[in-house]
Amino acid sequence: MAVSLSVDYIKDFIRPHEWAAMQPLVTAAHRQLHDGTGAGSDFLGWLTWPADYDREEVARIKAAAARIRDTADVLVVIGIGGSYLGARAVIEFLRSPLYNSLRAGGPEIYFAGNSLSADALSEVLALCEGKRVCLNVISKSGTTTEPAIAFRVLRAYLEKTVGREEAARRIFVTTDRSRGTLKQLADREGYETFVVPDNIGGRYSVLTPVGLLPIAAAGCDIDALLAGAAQAMQALQEPDLTKNDCYRYAAARNILLRKGRAVELMAAYEPRWAMMSEWWKQLYGESEGKDGKGLFPASVIFSTDLHSLGQFVQDGTNLLFETAVLLGPAQREITVAPDADNGDGLNFLAGKTLSEINRKAFQGTVLAHADGGTPTLVLSVDRVCEQELGYLIYFFEKACAVSGYMLGVNPFDQPGVEGYKKNMFALLGKPGYEDRRAALEQRL
Amino acid sequence: MAVSLSVDYIKDFIRPHEWAAMQPLVTAAHRQLHDGTGAGSDFLGWLTWPADYDREEVARIKAAAARIRDTADVLVVIGIGGSYLGARAVIEFLRSPLYNSLRAGGPEIYFAGNSLSADALSEVLALCEGKRVCLNVISKSGTTTEPAIAFRVLRAYLEKTVGREEAARRIFVTTDRSRGTLKQLADREGYETFVVPDNIGGRYSVLTPVGLLPIAAAGCDIDALLAGAAQAMQALQEPDLTKNDCYRYAAARNILLRKGRAVELMAAYEPRWAMMSEWWKQLYGESEGKDGKGLFPASVIFSTDLHSLGQFVQDGTNLLFETAVLLGPAQREITVAPDADNGDGLNFLAGKTLSEINRKAFQGTVLAHADGGTPTLVLSVDRVCEQELGYLIYFFEKACAVSGYMLGVNPFDQPGVEGYKKNMFALLGKPGYEDRRAALEQRL
Repeated sequence: MAVSLSVDYIKDFIRPHEWAAMQPLVTAAHRQLHDGTGAGSDFLGWLTWPADYDREEVARIKAAAARIRDTADVLVVIGIGGSYLGARAVIEFLRSPLYNSLRAGGPEIYFAGNSLSADALSEVLALCEGKRVCLNVISKSGTTTEPAIAFRVLRAYLEKTVGREEAARRIFVTTDRSRGTLKQLADREGYETFVVPDNIGGRYSVLTPVGLLPIAAAGCDIDALLAGAAQAMQALQEPDLTKNDCYRYAAARNILLRKGRAVELMAAYEPRWAMMSEWWKQLYGESEGKDGKGLFPASVIFSTDLHSLGQFVQDGTNLLFETAVLLGPAQREITVAPDADNGDGLNFLAGKTLSEINRKAFQGTVLAHADGGTPTLVLSVDRVCEQELGYLIYFFEKACAVSGYMLGVNPFDQPGVEGYKKNMFALLGKPGYEDRRAALEQRL
Repeated sequence: MAVSLSVDYIKDFIRPHEWAAMQPLVTAAHRQLHDGTGAGSDFLGWLTWPADYDREEVARIKAAAARIRDTADVLVVIGIGGSYLGARAVIEFLRSPLYNSLRAGGPEIYFAGNSLSADALSEVLALCEGKRVCLNVISKSGTTTEPAIAFRVLRAYLEKTVGREEAARRIFVTTDRSRGTLKQLADREGYETFVVPDNIGGRYSVLTPVGLLPIAAAGCDIDALLAGAAQAMQALQEPDLTKNDCYRYAAARNILLRKGRAVELMAAYEPRWAMMSEWWKQLYGESEGKDGKGLFPASVIFSTDLHSLGQFVQDGTNLLFETAVLLGPAQREITVAPDADNGDGLNFLAGKTLSEINRKAFQGTVLAHADGGTPTLVLSVDRVCEQELGYLIYFFEKACAVSGYMLGVNPFDQPGVEGYKKNMFALLGKPGYEDRRAALEQRL
């Protein structure tokens, strides 16, 4: 397959017998995952999702997306965490970080309900002004504070501007199959609904309706995305880590963590990857950051940040390893032209494409960072397209699950996320949290 | 002043005598800085810049910005590292991360020459199509690969579309006062030029013409920005760290690093701060990440990333401390309205503003993270405006210099950035790098 992991540049950092020592742990994790005997096994729906997904629902998603593309100037996607990062990452990767400025056809897409910023929500409202607006609200329960507030505000805005009946045609709800306040509201108002599966956690949900509706609305081919994931599902079943790049990635990061590399720095050489790194941070940070364990996931875009964090990676505290992401050919190539004056001294590059130069920048960087003591794993993606991205998403999801089991955590829960919520509810006077409030206020 | 640092939430992590123990180190660093006796003292121009800057040049910058605002649909800012991050961060902070979509008057602003991505540069070219375009190229030497390539491409585009003479009126160059290929080209072609000061490094240069021209072109008040910095210059001269928040910040991060907190996580509660964190990462990462030392700077936006990295911060590996950034009142407030059905269960928030709720989220988070073992420094900015931002920029710059001296590094050099460049030049066959090439190619 056209997604592959190279460990060539960590040879000096991991000895051959270290790989062999990881195989029993990989095999055990593989078993836990495939036999459903590990912690969190209620949340393994993603593992066979590319085979199991509801074809009828995906057809409805495509129809809804086509309707949105035909009738809306703006789509506001309301969600937080896994109900936000995946869709945005895929759209920016496949289309562009400048999607809204560059798009030819299809709606502008804005994301709301992913913070408590009044200004951010006000800006989205301002951008809706005078335009035909659709909403896609994504929340399993309907009661998560951030998206629930944004939906209350945006729904009121839409009903005020186009009336309740027309608003009902423009609101698309992705929520629980049968329970929850958002499902009840959708049924009452007649909103079209899509299902957040019970057995797939938020951070594993990008290939479910959670991600698929906004992605399809941006004009991406969700069938190809799912087909790529199905291909990965088939290809990545081999427990032998020397034959399975996904498990090799899981093993490498566990080895490096155990050597004191506490931070994994994802370094992509294309700006379109930036939000994919954010998606990856949630996937890995939330899956592994528990019980006092886990690699801290961070990210950079090179060569941009070689002129920023590059100094630290080259010569700072030795606590990092890098995972470089290389993408296949540019969609629109640029070749450096010769210049009669050569005032900028660039004529030695004349006739070379930017992509060739970028590749040399990567090679130069990997070697320089190795010399500085920072090892680099290299993940190559041959083409920027739906199919390879679907493969890659599944690759990261499966590697994360196996890596988490090797680390000795439940890769599918997130108990720590409740901490701030409970405190916030108590401080806001939410009924049921009275006991906690006084004790907290004393500490402020 | 309306920018202040609170150490209330690290009481359990730093004992009183630890602060006292830092005072002699702070005093020594303060002396090194103000007496010019520390390493890198050729690059202290920023220290008195708010008093020293050339008023005539700032007047020319305002005139050029007014001309750009009057005559251009698009301004492309070409630069990398310190010639990129500061301007973009200030514009997104003062205006919006969605500046291009929301702006009323003034040009769209795009940043180019900060990567080697063919697609990113192609997209900027596509966005220029059919529009009146101005360029601001920012490079001290004119030979830095990334901006030099972008400028070669964009200048050719501009000359092709409007002719060489008109292009010369639309190109603004920020470069060395007298030397270098870019200065020579500008003089030959008659481009208006602004000066990159000799004694201010890239990451300290946002308040020089490097940052000021794009910032002014976005409609921001650069006089107020400089006035805020001047206020900070006066206010932050006190060596007693109990009376100087800037030095307290420098001391706190050194204490926490020495306790094994190797990562500083900047956590802002407003999305408009996101690029300021990137600017801060360069400032601190490049100043301190050397000789195997330094805090690794990372960033999140909360509450967004409480649904992502929040789990890690709450309960993962104990290697972080947080620096929370709180911003004053929203520019456009939103109040939660009551809802007859209360299907989303949010009526307990009715009548509250989003900013109030956001503040409770912050308080709840700080206490939860403290319970989880992660201390938080709190930096408060009373108002989102030029003056306070100017103060804050100077605050961070001075704290960084003092922090670097306390760490025992030269906060003003960046020898590690050369590593990848030399390798890249060798691999690209640049004249003068032949010796290196064969050895590198063998390792690939």
